[in-house]
Amino acid sequence: MEQTKFMLGEEDIPTHWYNIQADLPEPLPPIIHPGRMDPVTPDDLAPIFAMELIKQEVSQERWIEIPEPVRDVYKLWRPTPLYRARRWEQALGTPARIYYKWEGVSPPGSHKPNTAVAQAYYNKMEGQTRITTETGAGQWGSALSFACNLFDMECKVYMVGISYDQKPYRKSMIEAWGATIVRSPSLETSVGKKYLEEVPGHTGSLGLAISEGVEDAVTHEGSKYALGSVLNHVLLHQTVIGQEMKKQFELADDYPDMLIGCIGGGSSMAGFSLPWVTDKIKDGKDLQFICVEPMASPSVTKGLYKFDFGDAAATTPLMKMYTLGHSFIPAPIHAGGLRYHGMAPIICHLNDLGIMETLALHQVPVFDAAVSFAKAEGIIPAPEPSHAIKVAMDEALKCKETGEEKVIAFNLCGHGHFDMAAYDTYFAGDLVNYEYPAEKVAEAQKELPEVPPEYQ
Amino acid sequence: MEQTKFMLGEEDIPTHWYNIQADLPEPLPPIIHPGRMDPVTPDDLAPIFAMELIKQEVSQERWIEIPEPVRDVYKLWRPTPLYRARRWEQALGTPARIYYKWEGVSPPGSHKPNTAVAQAYYNKMEGQTRITTETGAGQWGSALSFACNLFDMECKVYMVGISYDQKPYRKSMIEAWGATIVRSPSLETSVGKKYLEEVPGHTGSLGLAISEGVEDAVTHEGSKYALGSVLNHVLLHQTVIGQEMKKQFELADDYPDMLIGCIGGGSSMAGFSLPWVTDKIKDGKDLQFICVEPMASPSVTKGLYKFDFGDAAATTPLMKMYTLGHSFIPAPIHAGGLRYHGMAPIICHLNDLGIMETLALHQVPVFDAAVSFAKAEGIIPAPEPSHAIKVAMDEALKCKETGEEKVIAFNLCGHGHFDMAAYDTYFAGDLVNYEYPAEKVAEAQKELPEVPPEYQ
Repeated sequence: MEQTKFMLGEEDIPTHWYNIQADLPEPLPPIIHPGRMDPVTPDDLAPIFAMELIKQEVSQERWIEIPEPVRDVYKLWRPTPLYRARRWEQALGTPARIYYKWEGVSPPGSHKPNTAVAQAYYNKMEGQTRITTETGAGQWGSALSFACNLFDMECKVYMVGISYDQKPYRKSMIEAWGATIVRSPSLETSVGKKYLEEVPGHTGSLGLAISEGVEDAVTHEGSKYALGSVLNHVLLHQTVIGQEMKKQFELADDYPDMLIGCIGGGSSMAGFSLPWVTDKIKDGKDLQFICVEPMASPSVTKGLYKFDFGDAAATTPLMKMYTLGHSFIPAPIHAGGLRYHGMAPIICHLNDLGIMETLALHQVPVFDAAVSFAKAEGIIPAPEPSHAIKVAMDEALKCKETGEEKVIAFNLCGHGHFDMAAYDTYFAGDLVNYEYPAEKVAEAQKELPEVPPEYQ
Repeated sequence: MEQTKFMLGEEDIPTHWYNIQADLPEPLPPIIHPGRMDPVTPDDLAPIFAMELIKQEVSQERWIEIPEPVRDVYKLWRPTPLYRARRWEQALGTPARIYYKWEGVSPPGSHKPNTAVAQAYYNKMEGQTRITTETGAGQWGSALSFACNLFDMECKVYMVGISYDQKPYRKSMIEAWGATIVRSPSLETSVGKKYLEEVPGHTGSLGLAISEGVEDAVTHEGSKYALGSVLNHVLLHQTVIGQEMKKQFELADDYPDMLIGCIGGGSSMAGFSLPWVTDKIKDGKDLQFICVEPMASPSVTKGLYKFDFGDAAATTPLMKMYTLGHSFIPAPIHAGGLRYHGMAPIICHLNDLGIMETLALHQVPVFDAAVSFAKAEGIIPAPEPSHAIKVAMDEALKCKETGEEKVIAFNLCGHGHFDMAAYDTYFAGDLVNYEYPAEKVAEAQKELPEVPPEYQ
């Protein structure tokens, strides 16, 4: 009987994170200070982030050592399994070989703790006692509360209103690990109050919750802020995923033709694929990188590649990224982790260079694919990675037509145990697709800041 | 840094189930036909169960081969990890070494698919197209729908009313795998109708849901019934847990002093511990087996060791077990999987022989221990195994007093992702302990059937 899982031992947990910045054919554009309109310095970022994370953000070192206490926490769930989806291949009747990296085995249920643990550790080492953050679907907020608890730190989570209402049990999980969670927009920050006054019961957005988290951090002693995606250092920490996967493909004696991942802020796709990008840009491998985003928030496929704020309230530094405009609030799709106006600069850069490509999908076909996968493989996926599942399925079905034996790999970055209400809606036939809101986006993009041409 | 997880490869999945009946110092009492009042024959059971399962129920063979298609499905999540709870040991400040076997990595989230897959397989091989069952907390119903789906069979689940209301997302999970689920008591069986007429909105019980599942199976062509615990063949299939654990303890170069598991029907404790029982009864190892049950349904510590029906409606064959009386309906504790009036005959027999021992606990201290564990180890446990966690904690704290370096192992048989409402209640301070209802039990025990003395 063929092998189903490719497992590694604790000794195979990577010792270093891989920094793609060392290998990019062109460097990333700088991060711009929104007041001065010139590149930010570490001092600009120091009120918000731990200094070690700021250093990692701009580091050009190829390998950055993982501190032993972080690696030791990783042992609670890493290395994660790589699966060969034999039953799903059979159900689809495809000659393709499908693999998935299964990150849902972490206690919070996704890839997010890979960076949460690192961020909590560095903040602790630098004397902080408390971390604030935002969370969309709750995966990141769970991960950071899990991590802060292990390093004996306080944690305060601003959860996007719509998700807070849709997923009450993420709240319970966050509380079980001892963190505090509030619905965003909240009355606890001046920006939250402003939005609530304008729209009582405001359903919130990731950009808005980020604004609240940042304001909270800079106004409280001993507090810093942590972001769960988008930034270079966050993507860096996620590269343990792709590194493990390379060893696992060796065990499988196979090599992928395409790597598929969902993108919201970009961290799961990055962690899964960046260690493979050098195979393409240095070794000339014919390797396809397919990012998948929701049609309700299609930053890369429909956004402008311009500098923009990371948050709704226009308080963060400016990053060059594909953006729908920082004031754009996406429709309440169930993939709450993908409801973001922008995208990780690294993912944008690689798309811009033609190294990666991106597709946008509606949520109903995404759930069709999720259920097809769950019935064959057992695992009930979160709505976010189900976007990758849909593309993997389409590619496998193309192979069925052509007879090609392509090797398809995707990142199954989280389970759907806290998303069952979304499945209920789907089974009841009540799930709707949201058309791309071109006019709202055009409106939001009018507010993009103008950055001097020398930094473009 | 010390090792956290002890992992095995797919080649280490056991090839045989271990049948304790071959090694019991005294044989099990027979199963009695309630009409004839003599031992049941395979023909008596044939309308309800697959013939291969009936053979396993009474087999005296020590090792029963696991069919290759079953072993192949096991690969979706087995072997499961054995963890050393280093962080929890440190948090408790104990010199004890604590290990836990983590069965929550299966897609349905518990140990239940170990037998669900086997039962679906044998029914499929014997030409059945549909399986009916009951479920308490939903772990078993999820597992059977998962298994039936993999073997392309229909599945109908009767879920105990109180759990159906408390855990709506178990229902969604069961539906995601294509099974049908109804609240029990239901209008779909004559026994369900009878109870609903007596008490509209009846909250149900495991015993009552079993009655409905059995009635449905015997009244529908191509259908058989499957039970998720109690019976010998169910416990047999679970022995993959303890067998893997023996290899893992060898890897850890350690040996347990005590094995702790929760008991509701008895299958998780049995699967975890039976492969170790021979170490005690044959090799004379000083090994303690501690079963833990809820004070609201304390079959072993407070029940009578007598013959009783397995279901509330008094339709099943009679088994000799510690029982609170088949008409007893336990209080609505959150550990829905432990709300059963009886107990697996094998677990009862081993308790009666003094090879195992049993404790009963209230649910508030159980949740205290669950949260202590979750904060240290990350995993949020289901309420059922949290009973074992509490005893492990107490034993570890005793070691702190005495300085003993005992080796404590417990079975973490499921995650709590579908039990977060129970955690909410706990954090809100609203969780209550239910006193042992002595009068209700005495009343129910008046209805115990009288079996001829030669079979006692």
